[in-house]
Amino acid sequence: MLKIDYNNMTIQTLGKKNGIDVDKSVKIDKSLIENAFQSVHSTRGQGMQEWMDLPYVNADLIEQIKSFTAPIKDSASDFVVFGIGGSALGIQSVATGLIHQRHNSLSAKDRKCPRLFVEDNIDPNRFLSLLDCVDIDNAYFNVITKSGETSETLAQFLCIYDLLIKRLGRHKAVQRIIITTTIGKGSLYKVAMQEGFKVFGIGQGVGGRFSVLSVVGLVTFGVLGFDINQLLLGARQMTERCFLPDIYQNPALMMAYLQVCSIKSGKNISVFMPYADGLKFIADFYSQLWGESLGKKFDMQGNEIYAGQTPMRALGVTDQHSQIQLFVEGPFDKVVTFLTVKDFGVSKEIPKIEGLQMGDFLSGHTLNDLLDAERIATEWALTKNGRANFNVILPKIDEYSIGELLAYLMMQTCFVGSLLNINTYDQPGVEHGKIATFARLGRQGYDRQLREMEQIKKMDKYTI
Amino acid sequence: MLKIDYNNMTIQTLGKKNGIDVDKSVKIDKSLIENAFQSVHSTRGQGMQEWMDLPYVNADLIEQIKSFTAPIKDSASDFVVFGIGGSALGIQSVATGLIHQRHNSLSAKDRKCPRLFVEDNIDPNRFLSLLDCVDIDNAYFNVITKSGETSETLAQFLCIYDLLIKRLGRHKAVQRIIITTTIGKGSLYKVAMQEGFKVFGIGQGVGGRFSVLSVVGLVTFGVLGFDINQLLLGARQMTERCFLPDIYQNPALMMAYLQVCSIKSGKNISVFMPYADGLKFIADFYSQLWGESLGKKFDMQGNEIYAGQTPMRALGVTDQHSQIQLFVEGPFDKVVTFLTVKDFGVSKEIPKIEGLQMGDFLSGHTLNDLLDAERIATEWALTKNGRANFNVILPKIDEYSIGELLAYLMMQTCFVGSLLNINTYDQPGVEHGKIATFARLGRQGYDRQLREMEQIKKMDKYTI
Repeated sequence: MLKIDYNNMTIQTLGKKNGIDVDKSVKIDKSLIENAFQSVHSTRGQGMQEWMDLPYVNADLIEQIKSFTAPIKDSASDFVVFGIGGSALGIQSVATGLIHQRHNSLSAKDRKCPRLFVEDNIDPNRFLSLLDCVDIDNAYFNVITKSGETSETLAQFLCIYDLLIKRLGRHKAVQRIIITTTIGKGSLYKVAMQEGFKVFGIGQGVGGRFSVLSVVGLVTFGVLGFDINQLLLGARQMTERCFLPDIYQNPALMMAYLQVCSIKSGKNISVFMPYADGLKFIADFYSQLWGESLGKKFDMQGNEIYAGQTPMRALGVTDQHSQIQLFVEGPFDKVVTFLTVKDFGVSKEIPKIEGLQMGDFLSGHTLNDLLDAERIATEWALTKNGRANFNVILPKIDEYSIGELLAYLMMQTCFVGSLLNINTYDQPGVEHGKIATFARLGRQGYDRQLREMEQIKKMDKYTI
Repeated sequence: MLKIDYNNMTIQTLGKKNGIDVDKSVKIDKSLIENAFQSVHSTRGQGMQEWMDLPYVNADLIEQIKSFTAPIKDSASDFVVFGIGGSALGIQSVATGLIHQRHNSLSAKDRKCPRLFVEDNIDPNRFLSLLDCVDIDNAYFNVITKSGETSETLAQFLCIYDLLIKRLGRHKAVQRIIITTTIGKGSLYKVAMQEGFKVFGIGQGVGGRFSVLSVVGLVTFGVLGFDINQLLLGARQMTERCFLPDIYQNPALMMAYLQVCSIKSGKNISVFMPYADGLKFIADFYSQLWGESLGKKFDMQGNEIYAGQTPMRALGVTDQHSQIQLFVEGPFDKVVTFLTVKDFGVSKEIPKIEGLQMGDFLSGHTLNDLLDAERIATEWALTKNGRANFNVILPKIDEYSIGELLAYLMMQTCFVGSLLNINTYDQPGVEHGKIATFARLGRQGYDRQLREMEQIKKMDKYTI
């Protein structure tokens, strides 16, 4: 079972100046915590909280996904996801954790499923390089956009569908494209109906950043041969723990509360640092959840509050040689979440080589030991220097544990939003840029916006 | 020539509340700026500023690197770098920018040089997965550690040398390993002398995070066939610009000063956001420079100041769908550095597909246009909402431009350190963790430390 050790947030280890007196604070903020919990609990599964029900999906959908994806798993050379933000990060997080670390470099026989490409950018070099290495005759493309209107994803779709038509003819091209979008909404859905693409529908109350356990993630996980039932079982068990009313039993509620205490004491940065290479995209997944859900100008009553805590991605042990100096000696403006794996399932011993006078303290240990010692040492160095940190401990990297982890991270975000009295589920700040993009591209109806943009005058003297 | 547009840092575009009155501030802080500049200038190339002379390296060294690397370039299947922090990030930044975006997926004929693996972690899964895909009979290993004592790198070295010896015999194994370290220092150097490895020496005054233009980077760049002369030429030209005494002519000094103004007004986060997939590791390079150089407990007089600004990696357009909501609506605690590429050298048109009612505003434009429009729109959205940002503009992604960029980033960091009156070049905060790691691994002489670590008592009630 996933566990969370938050000793290093408390006055008992950090001292009075930097630690939280957990028991006292919980008592003082009793009604704040209860209200935040009730506000989430009373609308569980409703409206934009529909995502909370995803782990409880009926067996039919899973069977449908399995039977659709099995032939792709067995026959396709490549599986390409076109999506961005919530349509990419959840897939990357889970997939990178569970596939071989050099999956795309293995032979088809060793992989036992297609190569995976998650294309979440429109850089022309990157797109063209994809075409250089994908076997277009044996590839499938999963186009994911909840709104059916995401510019980047539509652009990628147009490029690839055009290419497939030219190569295979329209009839065969249609078979190679999967559309994952909201049923009945957006131009991509209309086009899918017209052309006859396979469509998977995303629920209305499932926002992109909370969609990993919907068809957004599950279709790709099916293609990669993951155990979807275990993934959802882990998420279900964690969801139940996160609806326990006692904060001392509820990991998401407790950590949400302690993060809010930290924000209030000036810690405006939340570092997420997995000690496992395969889980590095979980830090990206967390960053979107945290940044987009909590970065809000207004509270629920419309008061300007400019809320938010900035997520920072890090990777152990790699970033010890880049960021730990700052974490240990810089401003007291961070909370560090460590993500630890108890059992990697494999290990590699560091050998002793005859006649070499070096690394005696290393030889005989495993790389696992070294990784673990460094993580413990880093935790200790931070704590000794009064820096708040806590540890999310996964028993191993498998479907069940990752399911628990995803559910924990989403529930925690949702409780923080409730404690901060903001709308966790909208992203009004993104609209400015979308509209300005349309204006720059000359889309009809955006002339006024273009004129407004052109009014900003830049001075040559401020360019070097 | 690389240009920097900092209009969006000024009161003229951001307004009085959020913008800097550049001309007035520069006048007020005239002596602060002059002193900081002089302090760097008067010791140019000396002590830990030896790295500033790297772009002026003599032609002999370049020829030596070229003649050593040419046969590896032409014959090896794989080139593996074992290094961490400054021994990895510079290499990744430059290499990922200049090689094909799916270099390792191309055929040997298309690549024209070995596959590249930069291994900057000790995760056992990752290490074993490397062995699954590297062609050990045709691979070279570049082991990089300035001190010759980095635990992670020594562990990797021991694992691979042991494997090579078993596979090829000791004599042939020796030929496959290159050591890049400080001449005459550390146990790796001693072992290299004893075994007969090829050694490249790092200068004493070249810290890891400032070492990319030394042999630390150049050997790998030679193997990949980059134009080292152009890389160093770009760096030289930028270095000269960064030693111009007039702040309005000196990009590194001006941006260092404006960053320090931002830190003083509460902006404790520095976002680095390239709009080019190939340059994403430049954000990691910047993060180490910024975090490790500027995150300091003491100033030069030994006063406790807990200085530092936290670097945050982002990627355009990808992170628009993850972080822009927070950047636009969250706290006013950030400066965003955009990195823009004028000419990608390639382009991809977004086609119009007959009979499809979608994306009309996209068709006919290129992916380049879309990327550019989104970057401009994001800049505009931030500026409109009073968020400080500036734009580093590369004419294209080639050796010359990347040379300019690296020199600019290093010089900027160095001027910020001088303006903050801290030691830019040390990292005392990293020592705690190193010592604690030795203690955990049972290294001789660290018993006291181990006992100290064991004294921290964790309470079960604070684990959920």
